[in-house]
Amino acid sequence: MQMLNKKVGSQTVKLANPPKIIATYSIVGPKEGQGPLREYFDEILNDDTLGKESFEKAESQMMFTAISETLKIAKLKETDIDYLFSGDLLNQIISSSFAAREFSIPFFGLYGACSTMSESLSLASIIMDGGFANYVVATTSSHFSSAERQFRFPLEYGSQRQQSSQWTVTGSGAVILGHEGEFPEITHVTTGKVKDFGQKDANNMGAAMAPAAVDTIVSHFKDTGRTPSYYDIIATGDLGVIGKELANKLIEELGYDIRKQHIDCGEIIFDNEKQNTLSGGSGCGCSAVVFSGYLYKRLMKKEIKKILLVSTGALMSTTSSLQGETIPGIAHAVAIEMK
Amino acid sequence: MQMLNKKVGSQTVKLANPPKIIATYSIVGPKEGQGPLREYFDEILNDDTLGKESFEKAESQMMFTAISETLKIAKLKETDIDYLFSGDLLNQIISSSFAAREFSIPFFGLYGACSTMSESLSLASIIMDGGFANYVVATTSSHFSSAERQFRFPLEYGSQRQQSSQWTVTGSGAVILGHEGEFPEITHVTTGKVKDFGQKDANNMGAAMAPAAVDTIVSHFKDTGRTPSYYDIIATGDLGVIGKELANKLIEELGYDIRKQHIDCGEIIFDNEKQNTLSGGSGCGCSAVVFSGYLYKRLMKKEIKKILLVSTGALMSTTSSLQGETIPGIAHAVAIEMK
Repeated sequence: MQMLNKKVGSQTVKLANPPKIIATYSIVGPKEGQGPLREYFDEILNDDTLGKESFEKAESQMMFTAISETLKIAKLKETDIDYLFSGDLLNQIISSSFAAREFSIPFFGLYGACSTMSESLSLASIIMDGGFANYVVATTSSHFSSAERQFRFPLEYGSQRQQSSQWTVTGSGAVILGHEGEFPEITHVTTGKVKDFGQKDANNMGAAMAPAAVDTIVSHFKDTGRTPSYYDIIATGDLGVIGKELANKLIEELGYDIRKQHIDCGEIIFDNEKQNTLSGGSGCGCSAVVFSGYLYKRLMKKEIKKILLVSTGALMSTTSSLQGETIPGIAHAVAIEMK
Repeated sequence: MQMLNKKVGSQTVKLANPPKIIATYSIVGPKEGQGPLREYFDEILNDDTLGKESFEKAESQMMFTAISETLKIAKLKETDIDYLFSGDLLNQIISSSFAAREFSIPFFGLYGACSTMSESLSLASIIMDGGFANYVVATTSSHFSSAERQFRFPLEYGSQRQQSSQWTVTGSGAVILGHEGEFPEITHVTTGKVKDFGQKDANNMGAAMAPAAVDTIVSHFKDTGRTPSYYDIIATGDLGVIGKELANKLIEELGYDIRKQHIDCGEIIFDNEKQNTLSGGSGCGCSAVVFSGYLYKRLMKKEIKKILLVSTGALMSTTSSLQGETIPGIAHAVAIEMK
């Protein structure tokens, strides 16, 4: 019998052989390319259809591009990759499955809504650390127009947005984990539980996800004995302006103040006032491109050295909302350090 | 740097400390309870709504029941469980997320269509073998009426079915992995690649999934050096009568004859002629309940000792089909042995 040797506290594992993030690629739409982080993205599209006949196909093509380009950066072939972990927002994760179809790589499909980037990094890290793989790709995507059509209304309806509404990011981020080189390492994985505080308003996802983010961050602190000051940046996924403030208040009630370290990928990806994005960005692609672009490049330059990435997801569907259900949230955290 | 030590061939890992399947539970609907495997299921529902106001809520309740009852059988509390792996067919896997909401267990959401049972067992086995967990739950579900409404037509439309059509199983199976006791062990995990042979007919999912099943089974043989006769049973997920025959022919062309060992969970769960289920059962719940009920109980009695479980999934959505896309398939295999 093998003894359990990597668990730290109730929800966290400490990786004995921290996998290294040897390459990333971020591709975004035109609107994201006009935002404050534009200089950090690897590719900015002029045409968010990528010449495809549907937004769904465009989203899948974006993910295909992100995976292909990351392979080039890492100087690897697809046959070098042991596993591909991916998920997205579309029904039956078609963006991921159709992108995976183009590669001859064993594929694990995930669904964690907008928590998928840190979910895929968590499982990829665990499979690397366990000695099951030399190289793993973790990726996700979202597309404003495919998400609007599926979750709200087709764009042509010109639906009104509320102050708490968020703008789904058009983008895909891909990450390759390996064992060697001077790269940021994933040291801890804190896996989230589903949290539901009874929020029903599908126009205020930030409020629905905030309790999950808080629960995972606090569990991470308790499990590791760390305090907020250990990190240079604690980056939540897409709580947005309103959800971020709520999370800060909730976490304060639990005895932690993360305001100095806390950024939210959804808040910073757009200039929310000028770009009319209200409470900020959202979507699986949001924390994916902010991590793969902005945060990774700052880690590589050693401008920052220790971050906690906490992608956050709202686990509802149009059907569950129509049936009067509340919106459960989840958040997964990965601790990343550049030596 | 940790050396890669568990990979066998290109798609398979051999588990150094094979996790044991210490408990399972299978719950099925009334129609499944009238089928040939009725004596093997732990619970047969009289009312497939479970008293809930929607089929979606009923499906989630079924999964909740399967998880709760498996915990009881294993004499474990939810706080003993390190991770829950789950997915289902519904958009944004609401059956799984809403069931997970009821438990305080770190949750990884998956989407592998009807391959989800072996996908969840694969990841659960890897996380156990890597020393990250003492106990893990792997589960999935499907419901005939929630699947019909989402993928085809609401039941009230009385839509015609074709000879190649399959009947989505109403059921949920849950499995708990642990490290101790005399139980069947998961020894190898062969992870599937997405395969697409250009099939477009959403009424013939078996044909869409057969190439993926064949690819994974043949990779498993090549990676392990095994031949079909190593196994007492090779159980594909839900190829159905037509897909099973196609898989047998395709695999024969590749130099293997699996007819003696091959059963298909979709073919055997119903009496397809008497129960008018045409090509057989399908859905995530199909291989979940056939494994958790029929196969597990036969393993425990040592009537069979070595099986390869190969759940199969069709990775389409109604949107991808409407947009003229073909149907990619995937299959994941886990080798299970009773000493």
